[in-house]
Amino acid sequence: MTFRQKHLLGIEPLHPEEIRTVLDLAERYVDLNRAAEKHSDVLRGLTQINMFFENSTRTQASFELAGKRLGADVMNMSMQASSIKKGETLIDTALTLNAMHPDLLVVRHPHSGAVNLLAEKVNCAVLNAGDGKHEHPTQALLDALTIRRAKGRLHRLNIAICGDIAHSRVARSNLMLLGKMENRVRLVGPATLMPSGMEEFGCEVFDDMREGLKDVDVVMMLRLQRERMDGGFIPSEREYYHRWGLDAEKLAYAKPDAIVMHPGPMNRGVEIDGQIADDINRSVIQEQVEMGVAVRMAAMDLLARNLRAAHANPEVMV
Amino acid sequence: MTFRQKHLLGIEPLHPEEIRTVLDLAERYVDLNRAAEKHSDVLRGLTQINMFFENSTRTQASFELAGKRLGADVMNMSMQASSIKKGETLIDTALTLNAMHPDLLVVRHPHSGAVNLLAEKVNCAVLNAGDGKHEHPTQALLDALTIRRAKGRLHRLNIAICGDIAHSRVARSNLMLLGKMENRVRLVGPATLMPSGMEEFGCEVFDDMREGLKDVDVVMMLRLQRERMDGGFIPSEREYYHRWGLDAEKLAYAKPDAIVMHPGPMNRGVEIDGQIADDINRSVIQEQVEMGVAVRMAAMDLLARNLRAAHANPEVMV
Amino acid sequence: MTFRQKHLLGIEPLHPEEIRTVLDLAERYVDLNRAAEKHSDVLRGLTQINMFFENSTRTQASFELAGKRLGADVMNMSMQASSIKKGETLIDTALTLNAMHPDLLVVRHPHSGAVNLLAEKVNCAVLNAGDGKHEHPTQALLDALTIRRAKGRLHRLNIAICGDIAHSRVARSNLMLLGKMENRVRLVGPATLMPSGMEEFGCEVFDDMREGLKDVDVVMMLRLQRERMDGGFIPSEREYYHRWGLDAEKLAYAKPDAIVMHPGPMNRGVEIDGQIADDINRSVIQEQVEMGVAVRMAAMDLLARNLRAAHANPEVMV
Repeated sequence: MTFRQKHLLGIEPLHPEEIRTVLDLAERYVDLNRAAEKHSDVLRGLTQINMFFENSTRTQASFELAGKRLGADVMNMSMQASSIKKGETLIDTALTLNAMHPDLLVVRHPHSGAVNLLAEKVNCAVLNAGDGKHEHPTQALLDALTIRRAKGRLHRLNIAICGDIAHSRVARSNLMLLGKMENRVRLVGPATLMPSGMEEFGCEVFDDMREGLKDVDVVMMLRLQRERMDGGFIPSEREYYHRWGLDAEKLAYAKPDAIVMHPGPMNRGVEIDGQIADDINRSVIQEQVEMGVAVRMAAMDLLARNLRAAHANPEVMV
Repeated sequence: MTFRQKHLLGIEPLHPEEIRTVLDLAERYVDLNRAAEKHSDVLRGLTQINMFFENSTRTQASFELAGKRLGADVMNMSMQASSIKKGETLIDTALTLNAMHPDLLVVRHPHSGAVNLLAEKVNCAVLNAGDGKHEHPTQALLDALTIRRAKGRLHRLNIAICGDIAHSRVARSNLMLLGKMENRVRLVGPATLMPSGMEEFGCEVFDDMREGLKDVDVVMMLRLQRERMDGGFIPSEREYYHRWGLDAEKLAYAKPDAIVMHPGPMNRGVEIDGQIADDINRSVIQEQVEMGVAVRMAAMDLLARNLRAAHANPEVMV
Repeated sequence: MTFRQKHLLGIEPLHPEEIRTVLDLAERYVDLNRAAEKHSDVLRGLTQINMFFENSTRTQASFELAGKRLGADVMNMSMQASSIKKGETLIDTALTLNAMHPDLLVVRHPHSGAVNLLAEKVNCAVLNAGDGKHEHPTQALLDALTIRRAKGRLHRLNIAICGDIAHSRVARSNLMLLGKMENRVRLVGPATLMPSGMEEFGCEVFDDMREGLKDVDVVMMLRLQRERMDGGFIPSEREYYHRWGLDAEKLAYAKPDAIVMHPGPMNRGVEIDGQIADDINRSVIQEQVEMGVAVRMAAMDLLARNLRAAHANPEVMV
């Protein structure tokens, strides 16, 4: 197994071999989670702290279950926005927590880069649970595992990421991961929600859903992130659904066996037609949630192995 | 032991023998909770999720302690009212949680029937922790255990349920349970807070407390649910206490050894006189809380046995 | 080992020998917390409930981690201010919790004396996590451990407690502990934030920082408790920093090896200069946080031993 990271801050620093290591281990945790007894002691004796500076019921639940099922002592801290107005205070918070000797620190933060900054100040392993518009690595890993299981491979696939690309750390992390694994990625969405220069990442950009979905293997819809739009163009939901919402007519342009994904929570009737979301022959949306717990178990297990190795040989690792 | 349920959604589907099974097992958990070491591994390897769409500090605490003492991995999710405006979204939430493979899902919801709806969508065992004006089965079970311990039996007792019957799921679940066990139940309260047709359940209805309490073995007071009254008659607290509040003078109409119950939290001086609530010769209000933890441990233990049996023989059970 | 308390309500009832017992045991937990595996089963089978009637992210986190690392079943209850307007209701809450058979009850409350009142009503061990302006015993114990480790002893030291003495339970608990251990304590701060009659505790009172810090071994800064000031003098932050904020120039009056402490969270630039707070040669602020977890583990361990002894011989202890 190859996984040399101290932290999981993003997809960017990962080698393809490390991505495969996470996914392979996650497969074993899928089996554990489906068993009658779903508890292991892999993280026993370790302390996991979930620090969410931004609400996210489902991501926090996924990390919390992952840690508890692996036997860690898990603590949630809901950090209200009010207590962290200044970067300085974020660092004080990090130093305070660090002094309590956590082993795994799971952090979500509304500002891009905040999790990396925090990781520099602490001794433990940090997992980025989403920072601003930057990265959301466990989401990209769970999407990758879902695709690999549905398609039997994770390379040479045509994958369309559709919707609000500009505000989406999910799109960013997925774009990097899918590129590293040698897939062809298309970005589809309104020009006003499309960052410039995306062609540099080696992907094609489409404004039209029908063109963008043509013959793809995977249709990955994004959530319309109204809460992250500060001014600028905001389409009406009706208009958005008409042009970029996934319905049966637009999906017909994709390959007949194309799968449909969504990171949740869904705005039914905005990004996606409810019937497609519920179609068990096309939609893998529930499977994405299931893979989420497994991928987070795998990531924490791997980081904990590196932590223990570093503890045993403090001179070897920094 | 007889307990054939997949879920605990209400008292209605339970057979008297199943009720006895829960109470008998709960007796053993009363002993465990009073011991110096109060932890078992009965639910080890199982995941319990508490989803409270309505705040309830004491009920949630009771379920949380019950699960933790039995060794489950317990996760609380506080679902703010805002995220669940539509039934559709409730189902999406249920499907998302279901994909994380919980074993026991404890749900409180402000709408009658919401918990049953949710139970249809998931694979795990669902426990109703109170839904609208519908059912609150663990409350009725803990009341039954309290009565059985105080009176030595749970049949042929005269029991008065007093107060705001109309808004009370506690009254509804108790009425069904006590009827199944062949007790004579009276409902006592203002006509404006009394649903019509209660005589069909085989119980007598009284407007006057003194008449209603005459010679009863058990006086079960209810909380005045102002928060559930949408318009209509709301008596002043002073007027309510004068006519339907339990004080020494009214209690004197009951049998000399009648016990006094209240599901909590109490409005002292509204439904009940503080001195009666604190009278250890009459009030079993603290014992109700104690029985609550034990009954929830028993219910989760029994549901988990059925889950495991179903897991071992998936073709036998649905 | 000598520790005869049923509760940890304050420093006042503790004998010097009992303080030493807590600190000595805490040293062992410092080692455990620095180890690769940081979990023990000392509190296995026991239930710890954290009841915070006032928000305190760091103190609650410290107690929660302490309990989880010792194997207790830990439950957090956030008691909103709204549910506890009356003393009567506090007692009802206490009686309800007591009926759930907790073993360790950690309580923070905005009113002085509330925790003592609550302790009278319950059977379990109660730890005061701060009550009004009264006591905060685990803070004083963690400060004592930090001083003892930095200075090699906990007696015959010159210690200045500086700032908002009037609103500080931290100052009060520290004053008592440091006095019991035969140190010379000075109180330094604006006269308007200095309670009268402090000389009776055997300490000197200073209005001027330079005089107050002269030749001290320890400079203990306090947080400006604006939230506890009900009217009266409130200096501007700029004025406060100028006269009583700790900066390099004022610190130069202390001994060259004097340590700097702060209970956190810090108002940088108000009570303390940021550079001094971060100076690893002078500041022991992070170490205080680390000692906090260890001291709370030690206190809960000792109280649990007494609980178990009382359970085994109920006639010996009350």
